[in-house]
Amino acid sequence: MARLKGFKKLTIPSEALKKWLTILNPRKCEELEISVNEALNRVISSDIFAREDLPRFDKSAVDGYALLSTDTAGASQFEPIKFKLPGINTISYPQAFPIWTGNPIPKNTDTVVMIENTKKTKSHLEVYIQLPKGANVSKKGEDVKAGELAIRSGTLLKPQHLALISALGYESVNVSRKPMIGILATGDELVPLTESPSKGQIFESNRVMLAGLCKELGCKILDLGISKDDPKNISDKIRLALENCDCIITTGGTSVGKLDFVPEVINKIGTPGVIVHGIALRPGMPTGLAIVEKKPILILSGNPVAAMVGFEVFMKPLLFKMIGLNIDDRVIIKGTLIRKAATRLGRQTYLRVRVFKTNGQNFVEPISARGSSIISSLTKANGFVIVPANREGVRKGEIVSVLLFGPLESEKDV
Amino acid sequence: MARLKGFKKLTIPSEALKKWLTILNPRKCEELEISVNEALNRVISSDIFAREDLPRFDKSAVDGYALLSTDTAGASQFEPIKFKLPGINTISYPQAFPIWTGNPIPKNTDTVVMIENTKKTKSHLEVYIQLPKGANVSKKGEDVKAGELAIRSGTLLKPQHLALISALGYESVNVSRKPMIGILATGDELVPLTESPSKGQIFESNRVMLAGLCKELGCKILDLGISKDDPKNISDKIRLALENCDCIITTGGTSVGKLDFVPEVINKIGTPGVIVHGIALRPGMPTGLAIVEKKPILILSGNPVAAMVGFEVFMKPLLFKMIGLNIDDRVIIKGTLIRKAATRLGRQTYLRVRVFKTNGQNFVEPISARGSSIISSLTKANGFVIVPANREGVRKGEIVSVLLFGPLESEKDV
Repeated sequence: MARLKGFKKLTIPSEALKKWLTILNPRKCEELEISVNEALNRVISSDIFAREDLPRFDKSAVDGYALLSTDTAGASQFEPIKFKLPGINTISYPQAFPIWTGNPIPKNTDTVVMIENTKKTKSHLEVYIQLPKGANVSKKGEDVKAGELAIRSGTLLKPQHLALISALGYESVNVSRKPMIGILATGDELVPLTESPSKGQIFESNRVMLAGLCKELGCKILDLGISKDDPKNISDKIRLALENCDCIITTGGTSVGKLDFVPEVINKIGTPGVIVHGIALRPGMPTGLAIVEKKPILILSGNPVAAMVGFEVFMKPLLFKMIGLNIDDRVIIKGTLIRKAATRLGRQTYLRVRVFKTNGQNFVEPISARGSSIISSLTKANGFVIVPANREGVRKGEIVSVLLFGPLESEKDV
Repeated sequence: MARLKGFKKLTIPSEALKKWLTILNPRKCEELEISVNEALNRVISSDIFAREDLPRFDKSAVDGYALLSTDTAGASQFEPIKFKLPGINTISYPQAFPIWTGNPIPKNTDTVVMIENTKKTKSHLEVYIQLPKGANVSKKGEDVKAGELAIRSGTLLKPQHLALISALGYESVNVSRKPMIGILATGDELVPLTESPSKGQIFESNRVMLAGLCKELGCKILDLGISKDDPKNISDKIRLALENCDCIITTGGTSVGKLDFVPEVINKIGTPGVIVHGIALRPGMPTGLAIVEKKPILILSGNPVAAMVGFEVFMKPLLFKMIGLNIDDRVIIKGTLIRKAATRLGRQTYLRVRVFKTNGQNFVEPISARGSSIISSLTKANGFVIVPANREGVRKGEIVSVLLFGPLESEKDV
C-alpha cells in the first residue's frame, strides 16, 4: 500500500534530466548524405568549408562602367572627366567599360561608377564623381574566403543556409538521420478517433500532440497505438518499440494508482529501467525517466498539459542531442504580467500564459485553468512562464520570461 | 537610354504591397479535408465547435476516494472522519469509493479526496481533510462546453491544437490547399550545382532559398530552373508557370541594365502586368510586383539578401492570405544595439543583425556587410532590424525591434 501514498521523493527537474542524460550518454544519430534541395530544417552534421573564394572573382555590384579609380580624380558634377568606351575611338581619354551587376571586373580596372553618375554621349562617357579604389566592386572572397568555415556542424539548416551551401557549390550535405520515436498511449479509458467512447471513456489525444512535437524537431514516428492498462500489452508494445525506435514516449499509467503499470513493466524489461520517477514539476509530477537496452524511455503523465510540459523539459534537450543541434533555438521573450498567478512552493511550475502585444509592449496573461487536463488552456496560451520552485506565485506587473510555443497576437494599437 | 538612368520613382514598400494586393484581391486557396494526423502546421479553414462537453463527464483529477463533500465537514489531521468502502460493511459510516485519475465520479458523490489525505484500515477509510464541494473533480464541460468555438478558422495547427481537435472527437479537419509556387532564376552568369562554372559564372543559389522560405509557409514548389537572359526563354517559363502555379517568383533581370528583361517580358504576357517596379527598400530596390492572368508574380533581385528581404516584405503577407492564416506569427523581439549602423534616408532598410543573449538581456549586433550579395551575412545574422525611411541610421545603445529569422544564441553568463 505504500506506493498509494504518493511519491516519497520528488526530484528537481534539472537534476532528473542530468541524471538521465549522464547514464544514457546520448549520441548524435549517424549521418547521411542528402541533396541540398532536401535539407531544409535538417541539422548539418559536418562543417562546411569554402573550397574557393566566394565570390569567385571581383565583380560589379551595380550597373555602370568599370574604370581605374585614379582616372576619376577631381571629377565632380561641374567638372566631369571624359572616358573612352570600347568601339568609340577617342584615344586621348582613359578607358571605361560598360558593366552590369554581377559581371567580372575587366583587366586594368578596379572600380565601377554607377550609371546614375555618368552621361554617355556619341563620342565619349562623362563621369561626374570621384571614386575610391574598389568602389561598387564585390571583391573576390569578400563573402567567404577559400578555406573558411562557412557553416558549422550542428546548425539547423534554414533557407539562407541552403543558399550559402549552394553558392559554395555543394550539391549535397551530411545531416544526422531523423530519430525514430515510438509513441504509446496507455489507459483503459482511452478510445481512438475511429471508435465511439462508452460511458467513462474519452478520445485519446496525446499521441497526435506528441507526434507533432517530435516532427517539429525533425523526428519520424512509430505510432504504437493505445494500450489498455494491462502489463502484458504494455510490455509487448514497449519491446516492439525497443527493436524499431531510438527513443520511446509513453503517456498515462505513471502515477501511483493500482493501474499505473508503466514504470514496473519497464523495470521488468531491462536495466537500469526507471531512473527517476516523481519530479518537482507542475504539471508533470508523475513524469518518469527510464533507460532500457541503452534506449531512453520518457514516461509522461496522461494529462495533456503535463505531457506537453514533460516533453518540453525532458524530451527536447534529449532530441537536441540526438539530432546534433548545437543551439537551443527556443524563443524566450519578456513581458509584463497583467494578473498575479499562484504556484506551489517546491515545484518548478510551467504556467500557461497568453502573450500579446499592445502598443509595441508585450503583456502576459495567465490562462485560468485548474487542472493539467484542460487541453484548451494550451490552445488559448502561446507560451509558458517557468516559475522557479522557490517562488510562491508571480505578481501582477512583474516582468517575466515566456517560452513561446504559439504565435504572438498583435492587438490593434489604440 | 532613359531606363539606364535608374528608377525614376521609388514606391514606399507598404504602398507597393497595398496596391498589389488591392488589384490582386487574393483569395484563400480552396479547402480540403485531411486526417488530423496529417494536419500539423496546416491552416484550418473552418471553425471547430465542440459537439459535446469536454470532458464528457465529471471525472476525478487525482487518485483517491470519491465522497460527498458535506460528509467531510470538520475533518482534520487530529479528528479524521471515518467512511465505509465498497465491500467493507461498516454500515454506520458515510460512503466513499476508490477512484483513479480520469474515472467518472460515482453517483451520490461530488468530491474526491486525494490518497495522501486518507488512511485505509481493515475496517474503514479515514479522511483527514475537510473538502469543498467539487474538490479534485474535473467538471463536465470545464475544458470546452458543447457548442463552444474550440478552434478558430485561420489557425495554424500546432501539436496542441491537434490534441484538442482529437479530444473533441474529430478525425479530420478542413485545411486550405497548399499553394503551388513557381520559382525561376534568371541570369546568363548562373549555373546549376550539377555544372562547373566558367569564368564569370556563379552557382545559382536563390531557388533553394526561396523554395525553403515557401515550404516553411506550407507551399509546394514548381522549380522552373534557370533561364538565360533571353526574353523568349523567360517568357516560355513564366507561361508554363501560369498554367500550373498559384503564384510565381522570379529572381534577377529586374534592374535597369540592358539584359534586365523580366519586367518587359511579363508586360508582354498579359495585363495588368507590372504594377510596381522600384521600391524605396534597401536592399531590394529593383523588386517588382506584377499580376498576369489574375496570378501574382513577385520579381525579385538576383542578389540573395535583396531576394530574402523582398520575400519577407511582399511574399509573406500574400502567402498568409493564400493559406488563410489569421495571425502574422513572425516573432519580433527587442534588444539593445551594440554598434551604430548607417542607413540611407528615404529607404526602408532591412539591417541584418545578430541578436544574442547575455545575462538575460538581448543585444543586437549589426552584421557588417557592404552589399546585398553577401550571403554569409544572412547566416551570421538571425534577424532584421527594420529602419524606417525617415531615419538616417540607428544609434549605439538604441532599443530596436528585431524580426527573427534564425535561432537566438545564449552566451554563457559571465
